[in-house]
Amino acid sequence: MEPALAWRDGRIVAIDQTLLPHEFRLLDISTTSELIDAIERLAIRGAPVLGAAGALGVALAHRQAAREGWSAGRLRAELDEIARARPTAVNLSREVAAVSAAHDPEAAALAHLEQATAASIAMSQLGADYLLRRRSGRPLRVLTHCNTGALACLGWGSALGVIRALHERRALAHVIVDETRPLLQGARLTCWELDQLDIEHRLICDSAAPFLIARGEVDAVVTGADRIAANGDVANKVGTFSLALAARHAGVPFVVAAPESTVDPATPSGQHIPIELRSPAEVTGTAAPAGTRALNYAFDITPADLITAVVTEKQVIQNERWLLAPQPEEADRETADMSHMPGYVFGFDVT
Amino acid sequence: MEPALAWRDGRIVAIDQTLLPHEFRLLDISTTSELIDAIERLAIRGAPVLGAAGALGVALAHRQAAREGWSAGRLRAELDEIARARPTAVNLSREVAAVSAAHDPEAAALAHLEQATAASIAMSQLGADYLLRRRSGRPLRVLTHCNTGALACLGWGSALGVIRALHERRALAHVIVDETRPLLQGARLTCWELDQLDIEHRLICDSAAPFLIARGEVDAVVTGADRIAANGDVANKVGTFSLALAARHAGVPFVVAAPESTVDPATPSGQHIPIELRSPAEVTGTAAPAGTRALNYAFDITPADLITAVVTEKQVIQNERWLLAPQPEEADRETADMSHMPGYVFGFDVT
Repeated sequence: MEPALAWRDGRIVAIDQTLLPHEFRLLDISTTSELIDAIERLAIRGAPVLGAAGALGVALAHRQAAREGWSAGRLRAELDEIARARPTAVNLSREVAAVSAAHDPEAAALAHLEQATAASIAMSQLGADYLLRRRSGRPLRVLTHCNTGALACLGWGSALGVIRALHERRALAHVIVDETRPLLQGARLTCWELDQLDIEHRLICDSAAPFLIARGEVDAVVTGADRIAANGDVANKVGTFSLALAARHAGVPFVVAAPESTVDPATPSGQHIPIELRSPAEVTGTAAPAGTRALNYAFDITPADLITAVVTEKQVIQNERWLLAPQPEEADRETADMSHMPGYVFGFDVT
Repeated sequence: MEPALAWRDGRIVAIDQTLLPHEFRLLDISTTSELIDAIERLAIRGAPVLGAAGALGVALAHRQAAREGWSAGRLRAELDEIARARPTAVNLSREVAAVSAAHDPEAAALAHLEQATAASIAMSQLGADYLLRRRSGRPLRVLTHCNTGALACLGWGSALGVIRALHERRALAHVIVDETRPLLQGARLTCWELDQLDIEHRLICDSAAPFLIARGEVDAVVTGADRIAANGDVANKVGTFSLALAARHAGVPFVVAAPESTVDPATPSGQHIPIELRSPAEVTGTAAPAGTRALNYAFDITPADLITAVVTEKQVIQNERWLLAPQPEEADRETADMSHMPGYVFGFDVT
């Protein structure tokens, strides 16, 4: 498959994710305003891919600056605008800053792309290792939310990469895919990627997920993250919080897969993460009466104590509070395996 | 407003709820097969209105039997088919049975309609009384799911009737309306009814509701019910369970408003309630890749211990377990008021 994002002849080539699954079209981006537009309308999306877009965006801006004779001030303003195109994923602004500070922005951006791709595959394998150490035997039924595959992350993806690694080890029964309203990234993009990979899956409405989890139809919930605060709180696509609540209620592991670059030590907790409020029209669509007002939070915050583990490309960070104080109904199923797990704990120094 | 369902000249006249909010059209139903079709495709929907449709369906079948010279066996078969048109709401099969046993089915059906309308208004007032005794002072922000207004219930509705009663007492700030995938009864029908009543509201995606509840943007969650088991477990539109989990987590009351006819003493608990599995096409729509398989549970089960109270037209049934063992964070906000509340407790005999 074409990568979600690539650098070719000084331009960004990106899959237009708004057109999938019905049309596969590549965007050819040569200006910062084209890039910002693609990010804002979610043609380019997913926290790690947004990081890569930020990195390549700096290289692109430098090319455009040279071509059009921008002042240093104009270049800085354009870079700021790229960094702010979406507020919740820390990856975007961070990679803009990192690559801006590099001696050779183009080389730094390409190195970031290569590193992000490798990180995705390492994280996918670590996540599969972790889930299989927790529960082996029959293949796992894994529920996921939004799109966290190659389209969102390069390489194999984050949560969907873990699922792909389970599949390659023949340890996956099937995937339950949340459709992910309002923009249906699950229905449109995750189902499309799973089709490409020949992985068995079932689509559901987001609000059915907690019920399926409670009924015992899910062995693990795995999602990505848009930003992870220093205390372990996770911002991710709206709907993630309710999955974590339901997983806790049912004693099912709730695992977040995200690259280290998603962790933001500068954000103390979830309440400091800005939550993007998007256009009401995404919610009202054509169904609601004309003039209906809507609230469209694109993300929500899952508190650290509902998260069983965060898997990155380097480590499995486990939740100490969860380990020490399992709910009564969770105790039987969970504690035995977890005590043997390697990894780190929120609130401890990770060395 | 035209009632959702009425009996005119030996025919059933019903609002076609699949066409709202963009078109207001009345169905004129004179045969049982037309009625069954209207129920199956959700042109007629909502547990209490399904009960009324069952009642009027018996009257309709008797008229058709006389007109077409049906045998007693054929009549019985047609009545069975009406009763089974949808499995989850107990009201439908119960009213078919009750009216079938009456000496004069037409009179019994009309009496049921009148009683259901009056019950809806009584329940609405009782529910508003209950919420205002729990919390007075500033007007309430109430979150609701699916459509539970006059379209679903006759009269004022169930959950939406409680909201209307709060509004009439100037005790309502605004309503947060879940869009209610896959068929968007919240976006289409609840927003339309609230527009008619001039009640301030905001539409949200279903999966955003738990986050808004956790953020403190909701003072109470009020939903209807399709069936209430003897132990207090509630079957309702899929998505209800996650609202109850989130309300419990945030220490916000989760109240179910439903007529006494929704309580089914013959069903011991939620796991005995049949959950309707509807067409995958309702979920996949045009967004998912062709051939995508979907799981489309129309309802879910909310266990009794997550329910703060059930309000019917006669009583407020409170949850004893919830009263006796509030979560730590709930204790401050909740227990003071609740100890003074009249009402009954699940598991006790209701006399």
